[in-house]
Amino acid sequence: RLRAYLSELNVVDIAALFLGLSQEDMVLLFRLLPKETAADTFSYMESEAQQSLCEAMNDVELRAVLDELAMDDTVDMLEEMPANVVKKVLQSCDMQYRKSINQFLSYPEDSAGSLMTIELVDLKSSMTVGQAFDHIRRTGVNKETIYTCYVIGDNRVLEGVVTVKTLLLADKETLIGEIMETNIIYVHTLDDQEQIAYLFGKYDFLALPVVDTENRLVGIITIDDALDVIQEENTEDFEKMAAISPSDDSYLRTSVFTHAKKRIVWLLILMLSATVTGTIITKYEDAFAAIPLLVAFIPMIMDTGGNCGSQSSTLVIRGMALNEIAPRDALRVWFKEIRVALLVGVALALVNGLRIFFQYGSFLMAATVGFTLILTVCLSKSLGCILPIVAKRLKVDPAIMAAPIITTVVDACSIFIYFNVALLVLHV
Amino acid sequence: RLRAYLSELNVVDIAALFLGLSQEDMVLLFRLLPKETAADTFSYMESEAQQSLCEAMNDVELRAVLDELAMDDTVDMLEEMPANVVKKVLQSCDMQYRKSINQFLSYPEDSAGSLMTIELVDLKSSMTVGQAFDHIRRTGVNKETIYTCYVIGDNRVLEGVVTVKTLLLADKETLIGEIMETNIIYVHTLDDQEQIAYLFGKYDFLALPVVDTENRLVGIITIDDALDVIQEENTEDFEKMAAISPSDDSYLRTSVFTHAKKRIVWLLILMLSATVTGTIITKYEDAFAAIPLLVAFIPMIMDTGGNCGSQSSTLVIRGMALNEIAPRDALRVWFKEIRVALLVGVALALVNGLRIFFQYGSFLMAATVGFTLILTVCLSKSLGCILPIVAKRLKVDPAIMAAPIITTVVDACSIFIYFNVALLVLHV
Ligand SMILES: [Mg+2]
Ligand SMILES: [Mg+2]
Ligand SMILES: [Mg+2]
Ligand SMILES: [Mg+2]
Ligand SMILES: [Mg+2]
Ligand SMILES: [Mg+2]
Ligand SMILES: [Mg+2]
Ligand SMILES: [Mg+2]
Ligand SMILES: [Mg+2]
Ligand SMILES: [Mg+2]
Ligand SMILES: [Mg+2]
Ligand SMILES: [Mg+2]
Ligand SMILES: [Mg+2]
Repeated sequence: RLRAYLSELNVVDIAALFLGLSQEDMVLLFRLLPKETAADTFSYMESEAQQSLCEAMNDVELRAVLDELAMDDTVDMLEEMPANVVKKVLQSCDMQYRKSINQFLSYPEDSAGSLMTIELVDLKSSMTVGQAFDHIRRTGVNKETIYTCYVIGDNRVLEGVVTVKTLLLADKETLIGEIMETNIIYVHTLDDQEQIAYLFGKYDFLALPVVDTENRLVGIITIDDALDVIQEENTEDFEKMAAISPSDDSYLRTSVFTHAKKRIVWLLILMLSATVTGTIITKYEDAFAAIPLLVAFIPMIMDTGGNCGSQSSTLVIRGMALNEIAPRDALRVWFKEIRVALLVGVALALVNGLRIFFQYGSFLMAATVGFTLILTVCLSKSLGCILPIVAKRLKVDPAIMAAPIITTVVDACSIFIYFNVALLVLHV
Repeated sequence: RLRAYLSELNVVDIAALFLGLSQEDMVLLFRLLPKETAADTFSYMESEAQQSLCEAMNDVELRAVLDELAMDDTVDMLEEMPANVVKKVLQSCDMQYRKSINQFLSYPEDSAGSLMTIELVDLKSSMTVGQAFDHIRRTGVNKETIYTCYVIGDNRVLEGVVTVKTLLLADKETLIGEIMETNIIYVHTLDDQEQIAYLFGKYDFLALPVVDTENRLVGIITIDDALDVIQEENTEDFEKMAAISPSDDSYLRTSVFTHAKKRIVWLLILMLSATVTGTIITKYEDAFAAIPLLVAFIPMIMDTGGNCGSQSSTLVIRGMALNEIAPRDALRVWFKEIRVALLVGVALALVNGLRIFFQYGSFLMAATVGFTLILTVCLSKSLGCILPIVAKRLKVDPAIMAAPIITTVVDACSIFIYFNVALLVLHV
């Protein structure tokens, strides 16, 4: 009955059932799965469940799963496992396969090589469409995708791509060489995954070929894995922009100690940097000793500056992540920001000036805060758009030039501006 | 020669050539495109270019493009155009097609209905695999995808899905009804696009069927459009989390005035809220009149609180966006955060306490700031994780409970804590 129930479920949902089971139950449940879907289900399990199963299965079972598992999923699994389990898994494979796995494990993280898989359909340009279909029928069962086929020449050099749609709509006698697309968009094994994510978004591919330095086809990356990359890269940016060292694990599965470690570094740097602002304040003790009300506006000025700066930096960082803004647009972006800053700054200054004038009856105080706001907004929006672009030029990830750093820099500047405006206007 | 050059290019790259051309050049270039790729290229153009072309083409040309264009791209195009161009386009269609377009235009933005398209392959369960292939060959040219086919019964009720891979690997005489997958994951026309993006990520689909309230198949959503949705939703979250009203246009294509409008609302709200912190400060004038050094630590305490809070809120908002954290996890999340806060808070307090002690030689001052830091970090991390979850429970987008709001709330609290600790410890 359980078996009937399982056959109704999507493999992704079956994989989720394994979470939280004991090791014995996992093995029992796994043995119930039909042969065709077992490996597929396995590829969707969390790495803890995969590890438990690898530990508990015998060599024959393990071998059966590995045979069906796509190379990219095998490598992803091994990357997460302790050395002894990796050893057990590798021992169950033959020499040839073990060699490929080690090759794949050697590609740097976040490279095309670490994302690609080798289960692809390769054709020859001299085949006819009919022969191509025979080839697909014979070899297609375990391919990651059969919908894009790759035409290779001698030495596996990539010559063209052809989709199953093109094949289906073509005559059986047509040669592959006549209908294949030769304007191929591909990546190299060492290309970064951000570039790959961008290409998938731009060209709407279902798969992207990966070639080595001699243009030989070594693998493909499929859209489902590209989609995971996109979400990973977005998460990385969210974390960096909040002054958190990026991590691969989900929130709940990360330990308290790891969470603390990922956050403390930036907090320390930013806290110590904030003492600069404190030092500036102490220089103007006389001013706020004479007019204590001056202190009351410090948080408002600092916050507004920080918010303005982080608005700008967020838009610029996101624009660069989506390839909508390039470093050469720096001047255009700054010119836009400074005009936005003037509009926004004047509006904020007016609202706040009026409030202060009516609340405290001091026109000069209102003017001081108003002027400071306009200058602070212009400065923070300028820094907010320029710092990420400078970072990009220096090949540093622009995402770190976000709210936390901008806020800290803007704080010091805005306090300096504030007290100097106060000295000028209020003659303290 | 230009034509030969164009035939080498990917349609996406051809579409990019149109940007910046004059209207006459656009029409000239467009007429050079081979018939098969013209509509495809058109679908990848920016809406300005689409609009220019629609204005300049005659009815026959327009009709030819519309015939080839997928419904979702037609609707996306019309949504961006001024009324007179929409009218011109609709007049070039026949009644039946005009009716469908109006139906599609009526689906709410961000719903499955507004993302789906109707160019899908539908099969009957009584067909054989061979008949299915004939059907695909006959009707497949203009379908958005032929790789997932949809099996429908009477009244277009969705009965199953079958992939071309399954069809290719099956015997020609097999009935579709025997090999189709009947555990279908689908969405309804009014389902939100965030849910759709989530399903694509979870199940690795290439296409997702959309049904109406009577379970009749009305369209499909393809992975390329889901990928655009994912990036849109991420951009929306980045913007909301930086206190910017979300916009659909790219940074450079948005006018200064629109930029200002999207940013001023939250800046005003936050600026006025920050006056609460100012008011709290004025209550403690006597304290910092007695010990002016107290003022110097205000920025550091406020910034650290803000940074801690935004770290927590970012992780929780992101976790909820990825469906890794649910509102029912609230307690677990808070318990994690409070332990992280204690670790981080104590570390920060120690570092800063030592610095203050050695720089100013005052143990009591060091203790005041240290205690304040620990309390502030605990409070800000608690608020940072709880406010987004509360927002989600209240069906408000959790993304607004991010750094800007958290910072403003934490500022007021931390200043209050700071002066009260100071009163206790320093007896001012
Ligand atoms: Mg990885
Ligand atoms: Mg990998
Ligand atoms: Mg796209
Ligand atoms: Mg894969
Ligand atoms: Mg995968
Ligand atoms: Mg990045
Ligand atoms: Mg990266
Ligand atoms: Mg739409
Ligand atoms: Mg996935
Ligand atoms: Mg589409
Ligand atoms: Mg599209
Ligand atoms: Mg959202
Ligand atoms: Mg949304």
